[in-house]
Amino acid sequence: MASTVAEVDTRIDDLINDLDTWWLLFGAILVFFMQTGFAMLEVGSVSVKNTKNILIKNIGDASIGAMCWWLLGYGFAFGDDVGRFIGDSKFAFSTKSWGGDISGYDYASWLFQWAFAATAATIVSGAVAERVAFGAYVVYSIVLTSFIYPVVVHGGWSTGWASAFRSPTKDDLLFGCGVVDFAGSGVVHMTGGVAALVAAIVVGPRIGRFNEDGTANQLPQQSSVLQTLGTLILWFGWYGFNGVSTLYISGLSNVASKVMVTTTIGAASGALMVVILMKLKVGYWDAGAANNGILAGLVSITAGCSTVDVWAAMIIGLTGGMVYFLASQLLVKLRIDDVVDAIPVHMFCGAWGVIITSFFITKANYSNAYYATYYDADGNIEGEEGDRLDQCAGVFYKGTGASLGAAIVFVLYILAWVGGTCTFLFGLIDKTIGMRVSKDVEEIGMDDSKHGGQTYPEMQKQAGTSGTV
Amino acid sequence: MASTVAEVDTRIDDLINDLDTWWLLFGAILVFFMQTGFAMLEVGSVSVKNTKNILIKNIGDASIGAMCWWLLGYGFAFGDDVGRFIGDSKFAFSTKSWGGDISGYDYASWLFQWAFAATAATIVSGAVAERVAFGAYVVYSIVLTSFIYPVVVHGGWSTGWASAFRSPTKDDLLFGCGVVDFAGSGVVHMTGGVAALVAAIVVGPRIGRFNEDGTANQLPQQSSVLQTLGTLILWFGWYGFNGVSTLYISGLSNVASKVMVTTTIGAASGALMVVILMKLKVGYWDAGAANNGILAGLVSITAGCSTVDVWAAMIIGLTGGMVYFLASQLLVKLRIDDVVDAIPVHMFCGAWGVIITSFFITKANYSNAYYATYYDADGNIEGEEGDRLDQCAGVFYKGTGASLGAAIVFVLYILAWVGGTCTFLFGLIDKTIGMRVSKDVEEIGMDDSKHGGQTYPEMQKQAGTSGTV
Amino acid sequence: MASTVAEVDTRIDDLINDLDTWWLLFGAILVFFMQTGFAMLEVGSVSVKNTKNILIKNIGDASIGAMCWWLLGYGFAFGDDVGRFIGDSKFAFSTKSWGGDISGYDYASWLFQWAFAATAATIVSGAVAERVAFGAYVVYSIVLTSFIYPVVVHGGWSTGWASAFRSPTKDDLLFGCGVVDFAGSGVVHMTGGVAALVAAIVVGPRIGRFNEDGTANQLPQQSSVLQTLGTLILWFGWYGFNGVSTLYISGLSNVASKVMVTTTIGAASGALMVVILMKLKVGYWDAGAANNGILAGLVSITAGCSTVDVWAAMIIGLTGGMVYFLASQLLVKLRIDDVVDAIPVHMFCGAWGVIITSFFITKANYSNAYYATYYDADGNIEGEEGDRLDQCAGVFYKGTGASLGAAIVFVLYILAWVGGTCTFLFGLIDKTIGMRVSKDVEEIGMDDSKHGGQTYPEMQKQAGTSGTV
Repeated sequence: MASTVAEVDTRIDDLINDLDTWWLLFGAILVFFMQTGFAMLEVGSVSVKNTKNILIKNIGDASIGAMCWWLLGYGFAFGDDVGRFIGDSKFAFSTKSWGGDISGYDYASWLFQWAFAATAATIVSGAVAERVAFGAYVVYSIVLTSFIYPVVVHGGWSTGWASAFRSPTKDDLLFGCGVVDFAGSGVVHMTGGVAALVAAIVVGPRIGRFNEDGTANQLPQQSSVLQTLGTLILWFGWYGFNGVSTLYISGLSNVASKVMVTTTIGAASGALMVVILMKLKVGYWDAGAANNGILAGLVSITAGCSTVDVWAAMIIGLTGGMVYFLASQLLVKLRIDDVVDAIPVHMFCGAWGVIITSFFITKANYSNAYYATYYDADGNIEGEEGDRLDQCAGVFYKGTGASLGAAIVFVLYILAWVGGTCTFLFGLIDKTIGMRVSKDVEEIGMDDSKHGGQTYPEMQKQAGTSGTV
Repeated sequence: MASTVAEVDTRIDDLINDLDTWWLLFGAILVFFMQTGFAMLEVGSVSVKNTKNILIKNIGDASIGAMCWWLLGYGFAFGDDVGRFIGDSKFAFSTKSWGGDISGYDYASWLFQWAFAATAATIVSGAVAERVAFGAYVVYSIVLTSFIYPVVVHGGWSTGWASAFRSPTKDDLLFGCGVVDFAGSGVVHMTGGVAALVAAIVVGPRIGRFNEDGTANQLPQQSSVLQTLGTLILWFGWYGFNGVSTLYISGLSNVASKVMVTTTIGAASGALMVVILMKLKVGYWDAGAANNGILAGLVSITAGCSTVDVWAAMIIGLTGGMVYFLASQLLVKLRIDDVVDAIPVHMFCGAWGVIITSFFITKANYSNAYYATYYDADGNIEGEEGDRLDQCAGVFYKGTGASLGAAIVFVLYILAWVGGTCTFLFGLIDKTIGMRVSKDVEEIGMDDSKHGGQTYPEMQKQAGTSGTV
Repeated sequence: MASTVAEVDTRIDDLINDLDTWWLLFGAILVFFMQTGFAMLEVGSVSVKNTKNILIKNIGDASIGAMCWWLLGYGFAFGDDVGRFIGDSKFAFSTKSWGGDISGYDYASWLFQWAFAATAATIVSGAVAERVAFGAYVVYSIVLTSFIYPVVVHGGWSTGWASAFRSPTKDDLLFGCGVVDFAGSGVVHMTGGVAALVAAIVVGPRIGRFNEDGTANQLPQQSSVLQTLGTLILWFGWYGFNGVSTLYISGLSNVASKVMVTTTIGAASGALMVVILMKLKVGYWDAGAANNGILAGLVSITAGCSTVDVWAAMIIGLTGGMVYFLASQLLVKLRIDDVVDAIPVHMFCGAWGVIITSFFITKANYSNAYYATYYDADGNIEGEEGDRLDQCAGVFYKGTGASLGAAIVFVLYILAWVGGTCTFLFGLIDKTIGMRVSKDVEEIGMDDSKHGGQTYPEMQKQAGTSGTV
């Protein structure tokens, strides 16, 4: 029992620490569940003959990812800054590397960020499904989670060169603002999407995907049901992805709840836009379009979920849907084969999300989301923090354009960094162990060739074709 | 750091606000996940040929619902009262319409209530699956979420004529109590169920459902697995639906935990009862009966989850199971075709839940759930609040019958309001754009006709039938 | 508003109570969702012809389990101690049996523990799937949830003979420590696994599982997708299973977050080990191995999740994977047929988890997890609690071996108690109502014989075989 004001004050501090830790754990669990969503979405999008292959790759993304994130990734992302580029401490939960005790909040932070890292890795597997070699997958998963992605995180979210979280004042921030990428349209989705693009180019299209005349064929997709199940699970998990990116609930519940509302409106707007555009194009109501529309909206709103108003979330979702729709057709034109449309959804909408946000940032949202803890006793933001507000407001809100500048620079950085390292990585894989399975393996399918037989032996048997078990 | 008692007291207030907001967000996320449950349940219950059709409708319920709830629904439900019938402020997150700042808790409240609204809309799509026209579906989704459902919410939960939450004293409450429908057996489920009934009558039964002699055929259901997956997800989400309907966790954790226990016992009792009744009727253990029994129990306990004891929850679950069982057969007798038995589950068990609750309300539960915040310093309820307890206790607990009276009036109101508006709505749709697809479309299936081809092209190919992709 | 220090202190106490209650509810909901995981995993592992059968059994585990746990189980587990063996109060939420008011936390505790009990029961159904009689299933579910499992809980977690939670000092604890089985590798998983072993032996292998020459056939498994979906849901739910086993969040968030990290590393390590071992054995990357590897790692880390460091969690996961791999082959050698490998996963890895933990317990983790509340004002543990730390540290941390002794004794106890009671139970069932369906029923499949027809009538029809609906 506390008997002085100081003692009760300490009790409150302790309780807040417990709650902020739980908040992160809550988010981590939700974002981890997105692995299930990606697994179902991807398995629903591939042919029956590659079912087990995509399943085991999804399990691997989480498992290999956990090891890599533990040993290296988290430290590169959140360790002590080296040259604003990378971290170099906090490896492997070693107290030496952490410079002392590791708090409960630190463990929770690791878990939350691991779930994000696994997301970035998973995005690639959908794009290159049905023909990428298993060894190639293992190698790029390791490199992406251990090094390429953590460097982006360090630059965009931690104490790196573009981070908006580094300081409450504008000194020393990129364009006086840092990039506004609250939950990772750029950091996570565009990173995964660029890696997916390079991988898809290097590995090449599936046999039969493109015709001589440049048209594309829709290859068999085993189940719209699984794709939709996966998408809905992703939407569910996204409330953790965006909402819990406040990192604290104490003092930030207003931001978290607004974030979940903008996330909802973004998802809904994206779905409606893509369904309508697809109806105009192909003449029917396309269930896959509804799913990808949801994801386009979600990816697009992820950067600005905390800094824009609800009606702007609608505009971001609607335009994100258009970006997806056009990018998807662009890929076909370029003869890049992306099984689940991961590149349009994650790379294009990810970049779009970062850029469009800088038009709609309002001062009130920005100050709540980015430095609520810097208010003075009267709830005002004065001095340098106030200057930063003027500097960083959105282009449509009398801003200086500094946020837009930071957004463009950061998007170009991701393109260059991830594109560059991945070109080297996938090129190297291709020259050595090989990116792609043989033509025979691709035609028979991965499951028969590499995973001990197809998935549904009974249905095959009933259908009179030869089972493999 | 706080240095006075007043300052620490304020810190506690702030923290409580953060936590109550999080509590609502927690519930909103769980209830939103029920959309996934409904989608899986419904897609598992229809024929393969209508798979994509039901999936896109479920995505639409959430997406269209979000837009409608944002622009109109929430305001009609929770805006400033007009004539105890409807609200007329709090539209579209406009600060003008909200009369000032919108708090974090307000955003969370919107999200939580949106998930409920989407539930009400989804109920209809299961009943009229496999033959309702897509345009008709879009129109009724909009009207239901924007207007018909919000009016029920205003009347039953907000500051409307039947609400028990409006005041701690019995003055000015319906029968001195208001209707005890804690989490919405009536407000949500019966509303969705009545709309489903009208829609099913107007659209008519599927081809082949009923024979000339009045008997019914079981039309193909694509997957018990998906139906069960959906049902278990619904049970999971229902802990948010009922438990988080306390709306606050501070001071109400005792209610929330008891609610989750009664919800569990209700679900379990319903499942056991329906499985046994079905075994007696058809002679085998029916998996579908187990699923619908869970839902019957859950819907039935939703009204009284906070105000009855655990053993009463068992009785409510068991009798709810019987109500479902009988209602399901009644529908067949009346030649009303309901693909997923949504009408027995949601309308009949919803009404039953509201009415049966009024027999089992105990004073202790009622005062905890309905006005914990009105206790005086000694934990007593005195004066007018005490009078209300005497007035509103259950019929089996020496109550005056006032709660039963309010329950019956509210059930009749839902029947009249939703039945009336839906009769007009569906009649109008039928006369104009048409409620039903053509006979050809129905026989071929929606997916081939309207959604770009069937869902499982590979399995068809294996089976030697013609694929469509 | 509070005006004295004592009043604000009380406000903090009340808030902490609300939050600890919510924490348990949060965990209960997550653990309940594991029922969905088990259902999907099991249905994915059986033949199409037994789909509905396994689904209804999974629903029954939760439903029957709720009734039994309410009426008897919770009281036997957590009621007032009788002879360190069993509890005898707290039945059926009767205030008489509880000796007074039942708090919100009590209700939450019941819910959390019910979800664990349902887990123990569900483990059996996977092992004996496809041939166990429905009546036999109902009887063993009731006995297991009402009596056999609660006795283990009382002994290991409550105030029973082996519990480490009974006292902060070593007096009167088994080997001065009690068994370190934080979240139930032994209490839950090994209990379920031993019951599954006895059941599998008594019921015998499926027709066609074993050849005359001792080799085994892989019988048809309907879907790797459903198996993986189930496994990923289990991983998701396991964060509640292990993490929320702190039972309180206030003062224990550091333990909860570390637990979720060790749980993650355990799961990932198990998956990687089993995949690699299986690749070495069969030559391909096995998706089923990845799934069972996750579960092997999770079950193994469950006992020690709070008391070992992260690198030790990796060792526990890796060795747990080996234990699973060897045990799975041992079962085949012994001609014991276990459809989902529940016995290797839950019994062998469960026992392994309890034992291996006692090598890696560190004092810092142990004191945080087991008696954080006993620190003195300076954060030290003195006197008898300090003695206990010296006594109970892991074998690799200069411990006395007392924890290892307690672990071995507890594992032997579960083997004896569950093995003994289940031998009697299943023997009795076998002699009376019969454990097994007839040969005809088994060959036709349960769904046609007992559940009103097969699950996928349309696919059958397409395949030209006779449908049953």
